[in-house]
Amino acid sequence: MSYRIEKDTMGEVKVPADKLWGAQTERSRNNFKIGAPASMPLEIVYGFAYLKKAAAYTNCELGVLPIEKRELIAQVCDEILGGKHDDQFPLVIWQTGSGTQSNMNVNEVIANRAHQIAGKIIGEGEKTIQPNDDVNKSQSSNDTFPTGMHIATYKKVVETTIPGIKQLRDTLNKKSEAFKNVVKIGRTHLMDATPITLGQELSGYVAQLNHGIKALENTLPHLSELALGGTAVGTGLNTPKGYSKRVAEYIAEFTKLPFVTAPNKFEALAAHDAIVETHGALKQLAVSLNKIANDIRLMASGPRSGIGEIIIPANEPGSSIMPGKVNPTQCEALTMVCAQVIGNDIAISVGGLQGHYELNVFKPVMAANLLQSAQLIGDACVSFDVNCAVGIEPNHEVIKKLLNNSLMLVTALNTKIGYYKAAEIANTAHKNGTTLKEEAINLGYVTAEEYNAWVKPEDMVGSLK
Amino acid sequence: MSYRIEKDTMGEVKVPADKLWGAQTERSRNNFKIGAPASMPLEIVYGFAYLKKAAAYTNCELGVLPIEKRELIAQVCDEILGGKHDDQFPLVIWQTGSGTQSNMNVNEVIANRAHQIAGKIIGEGEKTIQPNDDVNKSQSSNDTFPTGMHIATYKKVVETTIPGIKQLRDTLNKKSEAFKNVVKIGRTHLMDATPITLGQELSGYVAQLNHGIKALENTLPHLSELALGGTAVGTGLNTPKGYSKRVAEYIAEFTKLPFVTAPNKFEALAAHDAIVETHGALKQLAVSLNKIANDIRLMASGPRSGIGEIIIPANEPGSSIMPGKVNPTQCEALTMVCAQVIGNDIAISVGGLQGHYELNVFKPVMAANLLQSAQLIGDACVSFDVNCAVGIEPNHEVIKKLLNNSLMLVTALNTKIGYYKAAEIANTAHKNGTTLKEEAINLGYVTAEEYNAWVKPEDMVGSLK
Amino acid sequence: MSYRIEKDTMGEVKVPADKLWGAQTERSRNNFKIGAPASMPLEIVYGFAYLKKAAAYTNCELGVLPIEKRELIAQVCDEILGGKHDDQFPLVIWQTGSGTQSNMNVNEVIANRAHQIAGKIIGEGEKTIQPNDDVNKSQSSNDTFPTGMHIATYKKVVETTIPGIKQLRDTLNKKSEAFKNVVKIGRTHLMDATPITLGQELSGYVAQLNHGIKALENTLPHLSELALGGTAVGTGLNTPKGYSKRVAEYIAEFTKLPFVTAPNKFEALAAHDAIVETHGALKQLAVSLNKIANDIRLMASGPRSGIGEIIIPANEPGSSIMPGKVNPTQCEALTMVCAQVIGNDIAISVGGLQGHYELNVFKPVMAANLLQSAQLIGDACVSFDVNCAVGIEPNHEVIKKLLNNSLMLVTALNTKIGYYKAAEIANTAHKNGTTLKEEAINLGYVTAEEYNAWVKPEDMVGSLK
Amino acid sequence: MSYRIEKDTMGEVKVPADKLWGAQTERSRNNFKIGAPASMPLEIVYGFAYLKKAAAYTNCELGVLPIEKRELIAQVCDEILGGKHDDQFPLVIWQTGSGTQSNMNVNEVIANRAHQIAGKIIGEGEKTIQPNDDVNKSQSSNDTFPTGMHIATYKKVVETTIPGIKQLRDTLNKKSEAFKNVVKIGRTHLMDATPITLGQELSGYVAQLNHGIKALENTLPHLSELALGGTAVGTGLNTPKGYSKRVAEYIAEFTKLPFVTAPNKFEALAAHDAIVETHGALKQLAVSLNKIANDIRLMASGPRSGIGEIIIPANEPGSSIMPGKVNPTQCEALTMVCAQVIGNDIAISVGGLQGHYELNVFKPVMAANLLQSAQLIGDACVSFDVNCAVGIEPNHEVIKKLLNNSLMLVTALNTKIGYYKAAEIANTAHKNGTTLKEEAINLGYVTAEEYNAWVKPEDMVGSLK
Repeated sequence: MSYRIEKDTMGEVKVPADKLWGAQTERSRNNFKIGAPASMPLEIVYGFAYLKKAAAYTNCELGVLPIEKRELIAQVCDEILGGKHDDQFPLVIWQTGSGTQSNMNVNEVIANRAHQIAGKIIGEGEKTIQPNDDVNKSQSSNDTFPTGMHIATYKKVVETTIPGIKQLRDTLNKKSEAFKNVVKIGRTHLMDATPITLGQELSGYVAQLNHGIKALENTLPHLSELALGGTAVGTGLNTPKGYSKRVAEYIAEFTKLPFVTAPNKFEALAAHDAIVETHGALKQLAVSLNKIANDIRLMASGPRSGIGEIIIPANEPGSSIMPGKVNPTQCEALTMVCAQVIGNDIAISVGGLQGHYELNVFKPVMAANLLQSAQLIGDACVSFDVNCAVGIEPNHEVIKKLLNNSLMLVTALNTKIGYYKAAEIANTAHKNGTTLKEEAINLGYVTAEEYNAWVKPEDMVGSLK
Repeated sequence: MSYRIEKDTMGEVKVPADKLWGAQTERSRNNFKIGAPASMPLEIVYGFAYLKKAAAYTNCELGVLPIEKRELIAQVCDEILGGKHDDQFPLVIWQTGSGTQSNMNVNEVIANRAHQIAGKIIGEGEKTIQPNDDVNKSQSSNDTFPTGMHIATYKKVVETTIPGIKQLRDTLNKKSEAFKNVVKIGRTHLMDATPITLGQELSGYVAQLNHGIKALENTLPHLSELALGGTAVGTGLNTPKGYSKRVAEYIAEFTKLPFVTAPNKFEALAAHDAIVETHGALKQLAVSLNKIANDIRLMASGPRSGIGEIIIPANEPGSSIMPGKVNPTQCEALTMVCAQVIGNDIAISVGGLQGHYELNVFKPVMAANLLQSAQLIGDACVSFDVNCAVGIEPNHEVIKKLLNNSLMLVTALNTKIGYYKAAEIANTAHKNGTTLKEEAINLGYVTAEEYNAWVKPEDMVGSLK
Repeated sequence: MSYRIEKDTMGEVKVPADKLWGAQTERSRNNFKIGAPASMPLEIVYGFAYLKKAAAYTNCELGVLPIEKRELIAQVCDEILGGKHDDQFPLVIWQTGSGTQSNMNVNEVIANRAHQIAGKIIGEGEKTIQPNDDVNKSQSSNDTFPTGMHIATYKKVVETTIPGIKQLRDTLNKKSEAFKNVVKIGRTHLMDATPITLGQELSGYVAQLNHGIKALENTLPHLSELALGGTAVGTGLNTPKGYSKRVAEYIAEFTKLPFVTAPNKFEALAAHDAIVETHGALKQLAVSLNKIANDIRLMASGPRSGIGEIIIPANEPGSSIMPGKVNPTQCEALTMVCAQVIGNDIAISVGGLQGHYELNVFKPVMAANLLQSAQLIGDACVSFDVNCAVGIEPNHEVIKKLLNNSLMLVTALNTKIGYYKAAEIANTAHKNGTTLKEEAINLGYVTAEEYNAWVKPEDMVGSLK
Repeated sequence: MSYRIEKDTMGEVKVPADKLWGAQTERSRNNFKIGAPASMPLEIVYGFAYLKKAAAYTNCELGVLPIEKRELIAQVCDEILGGKHDDQFPLVIWQTGSGTQSNMNVNEVIANRAHQIAGKIIGEGEKTIQPNDDVNKSQSSNDTFPTGMHIATYKKVVETTIPGIKQLRDTLNKKSEAFKNVVKIGRTHLMDATPITLGQELSGYVAQLNHGIKALENTLPHLSELALGGTAVGTGLNTPKGYSKRVAEYIAEFTKLPFVTAPNKFEALAAHDAIVETHGALKQLAVSLNKIANDIRLMASGPRSGIGEIIIPANEPGSSIMPGKVNPTQCEALTMVCAQVIGNDIAISVGGLQGHYELNVFKPVMAANLLQSAQLIGDACVSFDVNCAVGIEPNHEVIKKLLNNSLMLVTALNTKIGYYKAAEIANTAHKNGTTLKEEAINLGYVTAEEYNAWVKPEDMVGSLK
């Protein structure tokens, strides 16, 4: 491989000749060989591209950057956002906790690429624009990285997570309507209970997801606050007057998302409670989705020796040894995602609680975990929706059989003959393996006519939706 | 000990003669000897007292309970809320996961105490009111326990947690104002950075707590939704028309808190995402408070061989072996609380994700953990406030010394001579153990006059608050 | 209430006249009003009693404490261990993170009680023995608290946790033997799979618990290491020669447990990885027990509309509204314990990872969580054993019906006719709602005789136990 | 793109013509678009390659597979292990929870590649070897995936994790020896305490890591147990006699690692407590490493306004805005890894606790998290070692200054003049800003000669290592 020499304040570094990055990126590659290369999410790089462009515009507007430099910076940022330089960001999550080297990676790539665009050869001549003095002007890693990560995570949540959840929610809602008259046995403690409709059960899932979406949306204002303009410690040192407000406006314009400058920059650098907050809502959704997926696989269990009340799509052969087996694989993928998200919540909390003084140095791990969770929940909801939820159908025969067998229909008699006599009927039928009706009459508590009139499953599901 | 005989649907049970509880409570005591007795929080018992009274009022109003029974039930509920029967609730958290036996404990105590109030002797004669048919009328454990736990936790959050946090927030805010001109060294990566004021640092903590309070308040609407009226599986079986809305109104009236009936009762029984959601905000606050307490003990470290920038109150002798030692003990208590809360969040998540069909049977453990976290955070904030935060004072001498020593003042020169020359100055001073000014002049980059004019810590803290 | 005056190095404090504690305990009561009073576990107080007695013996033996003082100290320690002073330890977990005040609480109670034993009146005259100079001789909070917590937690694990788990394990093992010939349908992905015996299923639980017990026992050597002798920072300052080894021997003698002096006292004060390690094994057991309890409630679900393959004891009425309902309540209590333990693991980790320099100041929260988990798991296993496991019985009728219905018996044909043809048989039977045998013959892949000879559930369960 | 047709029991599927995989892999690609493609760790694929080869050898030896098929299978497995087919495994973690499709991916690649090796064209003619009937012979996904993940994780732990930790441990041990006479101030509660040597402090870290290594090694026997031979539900259906023991021996031979067949196959399929157990030890190590890294950055803080007792290597420019700043970046990368590992532990626990009946279907997420943690800890320890630990040097000047300033040297007087007088000296010096010696003499408690003789830091660090 051929190399060129790049320099930073610590001296010279050999960099692969065909790469756009510079000295500090190369140092980081060598100093942090932890896990797979390039694990720093590209979404964060793109977040940086938005903010570098916005900073260039703001710096130019406020008179501290020439328009030609602004144009060069903006052009490279657009290229990055167009996916043209994805292979120029080789760094890992497990670097400096402020993400300094990823900030410099972006600065260096922009500077070198701008040099190319200006018709020069990288490594030859004075750099057309300087990574620190130009690209990073009015910035610090300490305010750019949190800005980049807010941009990346906010986008992911509103573009992937929420739409994915809503898609699944809408399907469940339609199914809830469709099955609103399918009366079935309810179950509490996993034991037979009083009747419910399949639509009612699904409406509970819809309510869960609606609450989760609301909880997630509640966190977005905090996440929309950008640290940019705080620079090194939150005081905004070395920024021109009006910078922080204006740069946030540019970011909002470029991303078409409602970003604002953080009212308190000290909080925005030293703590990442916004990440904790948003991920907390994702964790809540993971808890909800796990419950939903579990219910569906329990209800679909069988086909002959389980519950079997619903039928879910068969998407793939279920077993490499048991022929003809079909499994609730989408439920499994979704619940695995839930497990991951619940774990990620702790990774984020452990990072969030260890800020020191003016800086939290767990930025990359916090951002990466939030991005992963947001992606996985969004994707898994869509996958679950199209490959499972849309195909859920009741198995009416089984539902009816299980409903009519149940001893818990006796509950309808509570208000007629009292809890204790009703219990006696159920216990006797259970002991004798007989029906409720037989024992109700045998015990002399009701007549056959009364029983028929009072114990009607379809009357036991209420008028609640 | 003397006993009396109590009965339930499974038969007779011997109960200590001097106790108000009945057969099912006694069975539970014997069947669940797990951990210390009476671990079920009294707050939940009180939540039950509110709802039993509200149910009696509603049942009476809707014509299914005679007014005399309503009065008896209400009177006992008031006694319970007055703390007169605290020793009548011996059950543990680790019982049936629906809290059935705690519901029955309350039902039995109300029924037996009502019998006493009616002038009868417990265990003699027909019960004046029946625990199941009267006290539990139009109810199930499955809707009462979640209602009781929402009442208990909502009250705790608004009466203990939020006031505690606000008290601390207000003190920190006052201190932030008071110290707004105390210029000190900033620190990032635990390393010397550019200047900041002590007031600015504290303002970051205030912002954290304000965000945390907002996050917590965002969760309250979900927590204000009451399951009552759903009965066994959410369908409202065996409740009179209009019951669920009316009973929530009575609860709101009795507690003076804005409770409403849950729009979807299936979600309210089968999932406890509201508990997950509220605790998620407490966890966020734990993350914030841990950061704040950590910073304060780092800044107060010393007194002679640490940082020593602030002085915190000395509340007790710090060491049983080192005479004269004073420790940041309130920081320690607070951070221990934070660790517990972060752990509790997982306990709640693990419980929340395992609901099955119509019922989540992790209710007691979820409620108890939320109550503990809410209490601990509220109490610890007050304790930290009165025993530490109010007494925080800057050590001006140390602050000034550490500020003026710092090499990071060089950052002020970035915009004058560029990042690279500024770095050279800092590196040279570091290597030689000299001052920035000396080396800046030696290297010929600035004159003494320029240095004095450009490098002023008080000009480096911005106009941001 | 009447008071007396007690003094410490910070001055005078009013203490309730009838209490044995002194100034520092009283300060702590006032300074840490966080959660319920007296939350510091008594087990830790008892751990202190062992170590204070051992320290007195060692100090005496090494010539730095007169024998009369040793006798007084030892006598009070024995009284404490006899439970005579349980109400003299009012402090909370949420105090100084080194547990300093609980150490002083013990020192003060011993000194004042010794004064009484010596025939004096507390608060009058020179103290017969001094809390710091005598009771705490050769000690620091920093080495006593970790010693006390190791004693307390080790005892709990070996006296409560392990016996509880083994009791349950033994019952499951007996059941596994008893049911070794009960052939039933196996289930994977919650779907019907090839046959298994009920005994085989239970043997898996036994294996889980055996692995868990082994994992827990593996952690005991670390937990048996005692910090005592390290004093303030681990160097053993102010201890006589030979002290640390000898004092551990006395503790081993008094507790009859194999405690040793920690080879490295710096680790023993500054990190509590032993607590993390032991709790890690408890968490593993929680994971195992949750799986076991879940399986049992799934298999017991019904009684008529669930799986219903096993019958578990009915210990209490299951529902306050549904008469005759019986629930898997022991499974619920146990899984709630598991959720708590998994949460506690994080509380302990968050505490453990934040040690600073020579001291970890999350000692009380770490110790309290380990004690709680160890108690809950031990108790819950016993409760589950006596109230559920011993009563588990197969429902042979249901088991047989579900087994014979299953399409997965087709797997026996794989080695005869190949996976693809076998799959075709199963899929056809599933589609047509017919039996495997019918379709196997219809499709012409086997004869009736072959089918009967090849597809025998009892031949499909292997010779593995 | 051109395609070929592949078939499975559900019908035909179009597969990219240049890929070796078959129908089921392609179905999985389409059905599980969750997160980035190919997230299933290659280590698991390699684990499969070992076991497929071992199964072929065993099947051949036991007479159920012709030697020519064994040879073909073994040859492809060797190619896979040689890294030649890394791009043929496109599946994600978030698939069927048994990993069925990854098992089939391997089966299909082996079958198609064998067809090529046999001189045929994929998709043409009868497959030379069948993915299910040959490659998967005597296997099920249910026993192969856990086997593959045990192979993969065991290898990772012993080849990456343990060597990495040991490398760091050895460096710290050498440093501990080298600095054994560097007396410095100790700190407890972050406050000045009695003296300690830098070597002693580091010895505590060594002890932590030694305990962690031991804890990790304790888990290896469980992890060495292989499920293979259990097939679908643990009974070993469709395996030849002697298979499970023999196949484990082949795996041990091929991997040169001490794998054995699991004594209880039901546990090995239905629970993954071995993964929980091993990761528990990694979590303990994360807790330890976090403490160590925190201490080092605290001690290195400054350079002028922090603690500054040690100097760590400057590996990269520390700030994009503050020239000359050097940060403890390796500490940051390491503590971020610790946060991730602690989070992963919960992901694994949540997966582990949700096994149902004969199968745990959180296999891929559990395995992937363990692999990630094992890799990250191993890599981060090496990175921390070579880029930080080996370069740690004491700053003798600072150490001496901070030591001699400390008031806690007064502790040496405890045994001479008692705790209370010693405390008075320290408190007076603290109040007056004077030295201990001055006040000790002023107060008349010691003479100057006594002070000099009794208060010697170097005599206060004990004879403990």
